[in-house]
Amino acid sequence: MNILLVHAHPESTSVTRHLAETASEVLTAQGHHVMQSDLYGMGWKAVFDGQDFPKRANHDRLSFIEESGHAFSGGNQTPDVEEEQRKLQTADALILVFPLWWFSMPAIMKGWIDRVWAFGLAYGYQGAGNTWRYGEGGFAGKRALLAVSVGGPEKDYSPRGINGPLEQLLFPITHGTLFFPGMQVLPTFAVYGSANIETDQIAETTDNWKNRLERLFDDEPIPFRPQNGGDYPDRHVLADHVAPGVTGLAAHIANTVPRD
Amino acid sequence: MNILLVHAHPESTSVTRHLAETASEVLTAQGHHVMQSDLYGMGWKAVFDGQDFPKRANHDRLSFIEESGHAFSGGNQTPDVEEEQRKLQTADALILVFPLWWFSMPAIMKGWIDRVWAFGLAYGYQGAGNTWRYGEGGFAGKRALLAVSVGGPEKDYSPRGINGPLEQLLFPITHGTLFFPGMQVLPTFAVYGSANIETDQIAETTDNWKNRLERLFDDEPIPFRPQNGGDYPDRHVLADHVAPGVTGLAAHIANTVPRD
Repeated sequence: MNILLVHAHPESTSVTRHLAETASEVLTAQGHHVMQSDLYGMGWKAVFDGQDFPKRANHDRLSFIEESGHAFSGGNQTPDVEEEQRKLQTADALILVFPLWWFSMPAIMKGWIDRVWAFGLAYGYQGAGNTWRYGEGGFAGKRALLAVSVGGPEKDYSPRGINGPLEQLLFPITHGTLFFPGMQVLPTFAVYGSANIETDQIAETTDNWKNRLERLFDDEPIPFRPQNGGDYPDRHVLADHVAPGVTGLAAHIANTVPRD
Repeated sequence: MNILLVHAHPESTSVTRHLAETASEVLTAQGHHVMQSDLYGMGWKAVFDGQDFPKRANHDRLSFIEESGHAFSGGNQTPDVEEEQRKLQTADALILVFPLWWFSMPAIMKGWIDRVWAFGLAYGYQGAGNTWRYGEGGFAGKRALLAVSVGGPEKDYSPRGINGPLEQLLFPITHGTLFFPGMQVLPTFAVYGSANIETDQIAETTDNWKNRLERLFDDEPIPFRPQNGGDYPDRHVLADHVAPGVTGLAAHIANTVPRD
């Protein structure tokens, strides 16, 4: 299988880079082909701006949606974006490895999403508006996995922990960014307390990470509800009979226990 | 009062820029002093990296926490970061205006947070670890407000809408980024369907926005639970008697109706 590993930390001895290197080794040893995007090493341009559109559809007014669609469909994107899309198109799985900064990804990785997730590909797939999204779309058939280095302790991210549960904080990424264009997203792998992690913990963490990597194509994805699977009859709002009474992010995960 | 208005869109006719300009006019007319950070116009450096630390504490290994604390406490930050912090320190309110890209802020604004939210100021306040956070800290006494331009329709962001409720998608920003260092955060102002908004809707939206701005120092903030208010006896996890049985993001908002 082909795997795209995107990571975002400039320090070679960081937990993030350790996770990325371990992934590359384990997956290669399993016979997979690993492609890497080391965003800091590449000097990735984080800011999505007018320079992303060398041949503008409209010179008077910059609409990102319009220009993104024009550039993608016309083959007029910048070479760096085209290269990342080429890697993605050949990938059977995408792994994003990053330190959790302010409960999200670092700006350089957000800028990878902002720029690479083009209109016509990651949204507005095939020019059909929102016909194909959440489980179907330009990245259907691919798996995705986040591996996150978290400074704080696990209890802060527990079901009633003060930060909120990690998987809910990451919902804009797992559900809104990866499942949206069709990827099947695995539960997040997290390393907590990464700022002060000790050698023996690193060994245990590495073992756990290796186990997750070996099951990359076997583990069950998060059961996000697909738009066109029947739970959203109007493509917008959950049907009354689906998870009745449940509101919020959890309602969009199929194994949510309904409120009694 | 002093107000810092940070906005992130390069197109002068965008909804984002319209909201920012309206805010500047209305607040100035009310007698406030408005400072602006037009991130695209400033060419803001989005990527948080080694260049942020001109005088390194440790030349062998780049730890962002260690170097951020060293640079902030020693007055060795870059001039652009120092200037934003200076504006923030004098501000009584912070308004962030941005288009919702992949259910979060554009990379350029995430990079404003990543770089300006220094250790010793926005986290690790006064070198006391997590003693002061969530309601107390370096930005205590300030108000914060998000104004978000959203491409999709409001129903997609409703309590059972397919994207998830907007305020839960923004929780990593409102709770985790703004309330964390002590700001009181107002409910988000959103303009839905911004990609195809019509002239008459713009007029109504502008009126609503003006009303919200005029009540900037009067509206009730989101009642996020402060860390040191008694609800988190160990500073990490909600006490059993607080919102009993509730898990997830909603548990950290004081007016959440408890499960029966």
